[in-house]
Amino acid sequence: MAIQHKLGGIFSPVLTPFKTDLSPDTQAFVRHCQWLINSEVGLAVFGTNSEANSLSVGERRQLLDALLEAGVPAARLMPGTGCCSLTDTVELTRHATSAGVGGVLMLPPFYYKGVSDEGLFRHFAEVIERVGDSRLRIYLYHIPPVAQVPISLALIERLLKAYPTAIAGIKDSSGDWTNTEAMLRQFQPEGFDVFAGSEVFLLRTLRAGGAGCITATGNVNPAPMVALFKSWQAADADAQQTALDGTRAVFQQYAMIPAMKAAVARYSQHSAWRTVRPPLVEMNTAQEAALFESLDAIGFQMPGL
Amino acid sequence: MAIQHKLGGIFSPVLTPFKTDLSPDTQAFVRHCQWLINSEVGLAVFGTNSEANSLSVGERRQLLDALLEAGVPAARLMPGTGCCSLTDTVELTRHATSAGVGGVLMLPPFYYKGVSDEGLFRHFAEVIERVGDSRLRIYLYHIPPVAQVPISLALIERLLKAYPTAIAGIKDSSGDWTNTEAMLRQFQPEGFDVFAGSEVFLLRTLRAGGAGCITATGNVNPAPMVALFKSWQAADADAQQTALDGTRAVFQQYAMIPAMKAAVARYSQHSAWRTVRPPLVEMNTAQEAALFESLDAIGFQMPGL
Repeated sequence: MAIQHKLGGIFSPVLTPFKTDLSPDTQAFVRHCQWLINSEVGLAVFGTNSEANSLSVGERRQLLDALLEAGVPAARLMPGTGCCSLTDTVELTRHATSAGVGGVLMLPPFYYKGVSDEGLFRHFAEVIERVGDSRLRIYLYHIPPVAQVPISLALIERLLKAYPTAIAGIKDSSGDWTNTEAMLRQFQPEGFDVFAGSEVFLLRTLRAGGAGCITATGNVNPAPMVALFKSWQAADADAQQTALDGTRAVFQQYAMIPAMKAAVARYSQHSAWRTVRPPLVEMNTAQEAALFESLDAIGFQMPGL
Repeated sequence: MAIQHKLGGIFSPVLTPFKTDLSPDTQAFVRHCQWLINSEVGLAVFGTNSEANSLSVGERRQLLDALLEAGVPAARLMPGTGCCSLTDTVELTRHATSAGVGGVLMLPPFYYKGVSDEGLFRHFAEVIERVGDSRLRIYLYHIPPVAQVPISLALIERLLKAYPTAIAGIKDSSGDWTNTEAMLRQFQPEGFDVFAGSEVFLLRTLRAGGAGCITATGNVNPAPMVALFKSWQAADADAQQTALDGTRAVFQQYAMIPAMKAAVARYSQHSAWRTVRPPLVEMNTAQEAALFESLDAIGFQMPGL
C-alpha cells in the first residue's frame, strides 16, 4: 500500500539573489523559482541556504508576494517562517498561510541555547494558536549543526498529539541517518511526513516510506533528483543515488552557498548572482576556477537556466 | 593617570516585562528602567537577559521610544541592536543612534556558524557605512556560549583600524578572564572600552583599566555593584567583590532570566513580572520558594523597587 504524503518529492531552499548593493534581486529570484518549478522542484524559499536569516521580515514578505504575483503556484511553496522572535514567526507564518502555501518550514527559536522541550512546545503551540488558521501545515526544521537548538523525538510526539493537523512533518538536517530513521519509524506511519535534509539520504528515505528531501543542491542539480524520486523502485536506483552523491560532493568541497551561487552565476551568465550578504563571503576567483573545473570534469550542466 | 572612558560603570541588560498575554508591559518596563537609573545603573536594554531576540524589530523600537518619552536620559542607554539580518541591524542601530543613545551593544549576526572574520568585518563595516552617523558608538558583544559566533582579537584590531571612532568598546561575556585580560591589554590603551560581561570580573576589570561591567544581575543587585565601581581602590574592595559574588551565586543556581524575573515580581509585588516569552519557561512554585529562601538567608533586598 502506497503511503500518501501531504507534500512529497524534492524541495529546495531557494538561493536568494542579491544585487551588488545587497538588496534582493526580485526579478532574478522569480526567474530562478520558475526554473525550479519547471524542473518539478518545490520551493522551500527562505531556508538556511536562502540566507533567509540575513533578511528582514519585510524583505521575506515582499519576496513571497512577488512569487505569487508572478504566478508561482502557492501549493508548491514551503517558505521558512521560523525566527528567534515569537512575534516575527507569527507574522511570517500568518502571511504565508493566508496566501495558501503548501506548508511552512519552521526553525525553532534559535538564540537561546539549552532550552527545554517545554519551552519549545510552548513556542510552537503559541504560534499555532495565534495563526489560528486551519490551513496551517508546519514542517519542523531540525538543523542542530546550525540552529544549535534540536527538535527531539519527545517534542515531536507531544506536538503531534496536541496539533495533529498543524504539525505536518519535518526536515531532518541533522546529517544523522539514525535520527531520520527513528523519525520515519515512529512518526511517518501517523502521516507525519519526513523529509531528509540532503539528497544523499534520498533513496534511503524513500525506501523507508519518507516524503522526499529538501536539499540545497536542488538549486543546481534538480532534474536528476526528481528522476530518482520518480523511479526509486527501478533497478538503477542505487546507481542514480551514487551519481547524485558525486555532484553533491563537488559542491561540498566549498562553502555551499557561495559555491552554488557561483554556479548559478556561471550557467545563467548573470554575474551578480555571486553576491552574498555578510557574514557570508562570495567565492574568490581561484575557488571559482577550481569549482568550475571539477564541475566540467563530471559533465555538470544546468540546462534551461 | 586616570583612564578616560566614553561610557563607564555598571550597565544592566534590562529585563523585559511581559503581560500575561506575552505582550511587552511598557509601563512596568519604564518603571524598572527608572529604578535602575536612580540606582546609577546604565540601561543596556535589549540584551540577552532582556529576551531581546524574542522581540520583533518593531517591539524594540516602541520600547525604546517609550523610555525616551518618559524622560530616561538617552546618554545612559546602550540598546542591543545586533540581529541576524543586516537590514534589521541597520534599522535598529540607525533608530537608536539618531535618538542620541550613549552607544549600542551589537551582537554579530548569529545564525550562520563558523563564519570568517572577513565576513564579520564586512557585516560591521556595512552597518557603520549604512548608518552613516558620526554619533554612532558600537560596543561589540562577544558572547560565544550563546551566539556561538565569537568576536576575535584579530577582528577587533581590524575594525578599530578602519573605524576608530565608531568602534567604541566591547562587552566580553565569554566568561573567560584570559580573553578579557587580552582585550584590556591590547585595546583598552587605544580607548577601546572593555566591559566585563559579569560582575564577578568587575574588580579585576577595573584594576586592569577597564570600563566596568554590563551584567544581568544589575537588574536585581545594582547598588552594591555601583558602590564597588566607585570605591574599587578602597581597602574593602575585595570584600565587596566577595559579597557581589555571593548574591550572584544564588541566582546562578537557576536559569537566570526566570529567577531574576521572579525576584522582581516578589519585591515589586507585581506578579506578571514572572512571565517570560517562549522558548523560556518561568520558575515553578517550588523553584521560587527555594530561590526566595536562599535570598532571605543572605538578607537580599531590592530597596526602592
